[in-house]
Amino acid sequence: MAAKVGIVMGSDSDLPIMSKAAEVLDILKVEYDITVISAHRMPDVFFDYAKSAEEKGYKVIIAGAGGAAHLPGMSAAIFPMPVIGVPIMTKSLGGVDSLYSIVQMPGGIPVATVAINGALNAGLLAAKILATSDSELLDRIKAYAEGLKDNVMAKAEKLDKLGYEAYLKEM
Amino acid sequence: MAAKVGIVMGSDSDLPIMSKAAEVLDILKVEYDITVISAHRMPDVFFDYAKSAEEKGYKVIIAGAGGAAHLPGMSAAIFPMPVIGVPIMTKSLGGVDSLYSIVQMPGGIPVATVAINGALNAGLLAAKILATSDSELLDRIKAYAEGLKDNVMAKAEKLDKLGYEAYLKEM
Amino acid sequence: MAAKVGIVMGSDSDLPIMSKAAEVLDILKVEYDITVISAHRMPDVFFDYAKSAEEKGYKVIIAGAGGAAHLPGMSAAIFPMPVIGVPIMTKSLGGVDSLYSIVQMPGGIPVATVAINGALNAGLLAAKILATSDSELLDRIKAYAEGLKDNVMAKAEKLDKLGYEAYLKEM
Amino acid sequence: MAAKVGIVMGSDSDLPIMSKAAEVLDILKVEYDITVISAHRMPDVFFDYAKSAEEKGYKVIIAGAGGAAHLPGMSAAIFPMPVIGVPIMTKSLGGVDSLYSIVQMPGGIPVATVAINGALNAGLLAAKILATSDSELLDRIKAYAEGLKDNVMAKAEKLDKLGYEAYLKEM
Amino acid sequence: MAAKVGIVMGSDSDLPIMSKAAEVLDILKVEYDITVISAHRMPDVFFDYAKSAEEKGYKVIIAGAGGAAHLPGMSAAIFPMPVIGVPIMTKSLGGVDSLYSIVQMPGGIPVATVAINGALNAGLLAAKILATSDSELLDRIKAYAEGLKDNVMAKAEKLDKLGYEAYLKEM
Amino acid sequence: MAAKVGIVMGSDSDLPIMSKAAEVLDILKVEYDITVISAHRMPDVFFDYAKSAEEKGYKVIIAGAGGAAHLPGMSAAIFPMPVIGVPIMTKSLGGVDSLYSIVQMPGGIPVATVAINGALNAGLLAAKILATSDSELLDRIKAYAEGLKDNVMAKAEKLDKLGYEAYLKEM
Amino acid sequence: MAAKVGIVMGSDSDLPIMSKAAEVLDILKVEYDITVISAHRMPDVFFDYAKSAEEKGYKVIIAGAGGAAHLPGMSAAIFPMPVIGVPIMTKSLGGVDSLYSIVQMPGGIPVATVAINGALNAGLLAAKILATSDSELLDRIKAYAEGLKDNVMAKAEKLDKLGYEAYLKEM
Amino acid sequence: MAAKVGIVMGSDSDLPIMSKAAEVLDILKVEYDITVISAHRMPDVFFDYAKSAEEKGYKVIIAGAGGAAHLPGMSAAIFPMPVIGVPIMTKSLGGVDSLYSIVQMPGGIPVATVAINGALNAGLLAAKILATSDSELLDRIKAYAEGLKDNVMAKAEKLDKLGYEAYLKEM
Repeated sequence: MAAKVGIVMGSDSDLPIMSKAAEVLDILKVEYDITVISAHRMPDVFFDYAKSAEEKGYKVIIAGAGGAAHLPGMSAAIFPMPVIGVPIMTKSLGGVDSLYSIVQMPGGIPVATVAINGALNAGLLAAKILATSDSELLDRIKAYAEGLKDNVMAKAEKLDKLGYEAYLKEM
Repeated sequence: MAAKVGIVMGSDSDLPIMSKAAEVLDILKVEYDITVISAHRMPDVFFDYAKSAEEKGYKVIIAGAGGAAHLPGMSAAIFPMPVIGVPIMTKSLGGVDSLYSIVQMPGGIPVATVAINGALNAGLLAAKILATSDSELLDRIKAYAEGLKDNVMAKAEKLDKLGYEAYLKEM
Repeated sequence: MAAKVGIVMGSDSDLPIMSKAAEVLDILKVEYDITVISAHRMPDVFFDYAKSAEEKGYKVIIAGAGGAAHLPGMSAAIFPMPVIGVPIMTKSLGGVDSLYSIVQMPGGIPVATVAINGALNAGLLAAKILATSDSELLDRIKAYAEGLKDNVMAKAEKLDKLGYEAYLKEM
Repeated sequence: MAAKVGIVMGSDSDLPIMSKAAEVLDILKVEYDITVISAHRMPDVFFDYAKSAEEKGYKVIIAGAGGAAHLPGMSAAIFPMPVIGVPIMTKSLGGVDSLYSIVQMPGGIPVATVAINGALNAGLLAAKILATSDSELLDRIKAYAEGLKDNVMAKAEKLDKLGYEAYLKEM
Repeated sequence: MAAKVGIVMGSDSDLPIMSKAAEVLDILKVEYDITVISAHRMPDVFFDYAKSAEEKGYKVIIAGAGGAAHLPGMSAAIFPMPVIGVPIMTKSLGGVDSLYSIVQMPGGIPVATVAINGALNAGLLAAKILATSDSELLDRIKAYAEGLKDNVMAKAEKLDKLGYEAYLKEM
Repeated sequence: MAAKVGIVMGSDSDLPIMSKAAEVLDILKVEYDITVISAHRMPDVFFDYAKSAEEKGYKVIIAGAGGAAHLPGMSAAIFPMPVIGVPIMTKSLGGVDSLYSIVQMPGGIPVATVAINGALNAGLLAAKILATSDSELLDRIKAYAEGLKDNVMAKAEKLDKLGYEAYLKEM
Repeated sequence: MAAKVGIVMGSDSDLPIMSKAAEVLDILKVEYDITVISAHRMPDVFFDYAKSAEEKGYKVIIAGAGGAAHLPGMSAAIFPMPVIGVPIMTKSLGGVDSLYSIVQMPGGIPVATVAINGALNAGLLAAKILATSDSELLDRIKAYAEGLKDNVMAKAEKLDKLGYEAYLKEM
Repeated sequence: MAAKVGIVMGSDSDLPIMSKAAEVLDILKVEYDITVISAHRMPDVFFDYAKSAEEKGYKVIIAGAGGAAHLPGMSAAIFPMPVIGVPIMTKSLGGVDSLYSIVQMPGGIPVATVAINGALNAGLLAAKILATSDSELLDRIKAYAEGLKDNVMAKAEKLDKLGYEAYLKEM
């Protein structure tokens, strides 16, 4: 089966964050490609990537970048289906620069922006987009959400049983 | 045909902004419902809305709110498909409060956030999401994008012809 | 005696901070419950919690959350008595996101917000609220305040006696 | 009946905002005093005010101030029961200065902070604090909340009936 | 004589600001072209522009854009000589979004960023760049700077003569 | 009597703000000079000004500037006695740029910074500095402070007498 | 000789920073007292301190505090001569909260604010204030400034001699 | 051959960052001088440096500074050709203070500002400026850009070959 999601990032230093998108897509059994393309350092390669994305069968692009983060917005300028932007945290400004560069797009060119370093949510959002026409995937997403809920409930029970002091010691 | 997009806002004072989402969906011939629900003032009504959204046939919810903007995130906590958040500009903080309240969601509950007051882009993003499984809609989106491009090109030609001084006088 | 204060947090990772609220309530001999509920991951459980809080005898809820922090505001939307919000510090934005998400509530739904990571003050504020109708508790609060004052005064005396250079060496 | 709430502001230029606290207390039938005291320009008067507040029967102080806003925090340093702080919007910084000056209190001296210009919520929060030991006031608060809800619901119905275009024209 | 400077902006709404760059180049007798190209709405046209700029004889590009401002950075990714970026002020965020999107470029792709709305300085900087190999232009730039100085000195003299009260009345 | 305070600003557009410093010095009978010097446009004139200030008998310099505000810091680099900096509000950033440019001086070169647009306080601070060795001036400053206090107290009395509704109508 | 400068801080955790003020006053042979007083935890002690400061012979107070930093402003409300404020860096907000709480004082009550953690400059500024009527102290300040200059010049020479690579290795 | 670029920084603590400018100029075979001059601590030395720069043959000055960063702007006030400013990251404010102090220059005095700590880009921008009249240098710059591109492409290939999990392990 061909990949329906393209994950792209501006630098391999973003990979420890961006791999969270891949992980959640693996869990939800969504096919994806993952690569590194700098819109700034290799604009031609980037243009080819964005232009051929529809033909390759991509339905969603997830683009992560930091600082003056142009990769998501430029992808959205070319690819006609949804582009999800992941603002990568930066050392000096905490990622506010990345966030503003990605979210403040002009009318006509939306980027679906998630939290700073929110690559897991980017992967999940891509799956939710595909799930608008794939009820089996929607079921897997619901099961995943149940898992998150169970996880917190188990912690709540443990906290109730142990009390906060004992719980803290175990952390 | 049943509505596939639910547009919801926290206050009717958000309507002059949020109506831009409805307008673009009208242009793209996407059915939608539009309403006002305050997650804070009528939490029960909100819960019913979010819980029944899937059953009603919604594939996407567009939620706009300002300040401590919880409507998009709480919608995403309940509705299993994509939720798009529109941060409404605020008088004191310019909408940074709205933006942070919407975009900084925890892992597991993504909100596809657009620019401050970016309701037009929210409508367009909803259409792009639906277009991942509707090639005719995708064609209408591409035509819409061409229109935006032609519009700027006409301006460029006019500027070239008139020069900037004459152009400024006509603005 | 039934608990009069409910302490709730969005994630057990907030416990090292939120336990400060419990500690000060222990000191002031105020009964409380403490638990973990994610408004985003388990909205039903959260709704039940907030709706049953009055019946359980809570007079105050202390809610801590980070990022797009909706737990305090959504609690205030349901529980009719005071809700105290604790914005948890975040890695990327230092907790400004949490602060704005909690403090910038719309008219009609106040959240009594304390400092970023200010859980100790949240516990103390809960006690002060209860002390508006409990003069013995008010006396304990005054004694606690005296203790804080004595503590600083002892430091001032020590600094006066040692001089700043010796004092710094002992720190 | 003696006033249970003291409303104080640093300058009479804050009155158009701070009067919203008085209005909501009027609606909820809570007695209050309202005055202007500058902690900076008349520190002695301020000290007397804060020191005599308990004796006068106040259970809550609502203090509003802008810029380097010290009135709420200094009130909380002296008055042993809850102090609610209202950050007043400022021209240059939008009220972020006021907000930080009020909310970022050190451990031991909480100020229950509401939104920038959130005086209505300050009044409501004061009432909620008193309602922890006054079930009739609590009923009035619940009725007030119902009124807010009905108000939004009427707008939602109107929007549903008119459609957004007609609704916008009437705004 | 062929134009050595290309002035480009993302929208004709930026023209009232960006025309200041043209004005100062007119004064300094530097040839330029001025046009409107949206990197987002017409990426192909933009690519052609940036790729052909060297061939057309441009030595400097001045690019102005607001919000998620990608035009300057993407120009710098393609054009090998200096690109000057002008962050356009925005309604919600005052232009901090534009500034961060333009100045925070990754290593290897500099954008020479000027102040928010600083198009006059962008024009002047372009001239200074050309003046590194054009001593006559450098002389004109020095004369222009003298003019600015004389202008302030005349004001200082006037203030000295009139006193501040009379001066204010004439403003 | 020779002027003891030099008031200098970067542009005559700062005069409506900076004149407040002059006004308060007039009230307190402190001699001053007031002028316009741009450290950027006329660095030589500025250097002469700062270098000759001690000789002219200045004990304090008050310098106001906006944006990348270098006038106060550069004055402090040359003049050996206190320099007071007034950050002028800016359209795009509200004066945060001016504030940071003035207050964040490196070790060894202090600038006594006042609030954004706080020229009145700059004048008053200059007087207080001179009053450390002039007991008559100190008495005038104390009388001035009494006046401020009386002014607020009159307002408090009026508010008490009229009630807030009538007071608001008169504003 | 009696102390002319009072150094006061809100918490002994500020001492590692605030001691820099003491150190520079030691170098410049200016007498000072140094103590810890929390305006929030011991308002009475603080009031006595500020009220008796003039009588004790203080000409300047240096006050350092972090977060909702009220100590400098409240000192300035009581003490009639210059108060210098040192904003202490905070973990969550980097000290912007401290800075705004100190610098944004209302008209009539100036605080001479220095950089975040700028205690050295606070000490130096206090000395410069005293030097307006003490020419010997002014000479010591000038000599101190020369020392700073020589220090940088020695580094410049070393960099020139070693080259940057060797210089970096020695750092 | 005489140096065409002057690299100057306010403190030798900036050298680990500023040396990146020197390194890239070394790679591109552009002659430069590098030194440390504090505009604040040694204004006379700074003035001589800036005034003699043109005579020495400099075509570009690269100036780095942190906090209230006046070195780039004051250089631009004196030197008639391009000045590139490098905002150095600061501990408390992350370098926003440095950025604003450098980029927000008034009309007439541009500073070509690069990213916070963006000294590499400052060096590259200086080279690009010189390349406007030096085609051999332009060729070296193009080759350098090709190298950056190849570097990312090699990473993309490796990621494609290894998969993200194996790639992450090797990082």
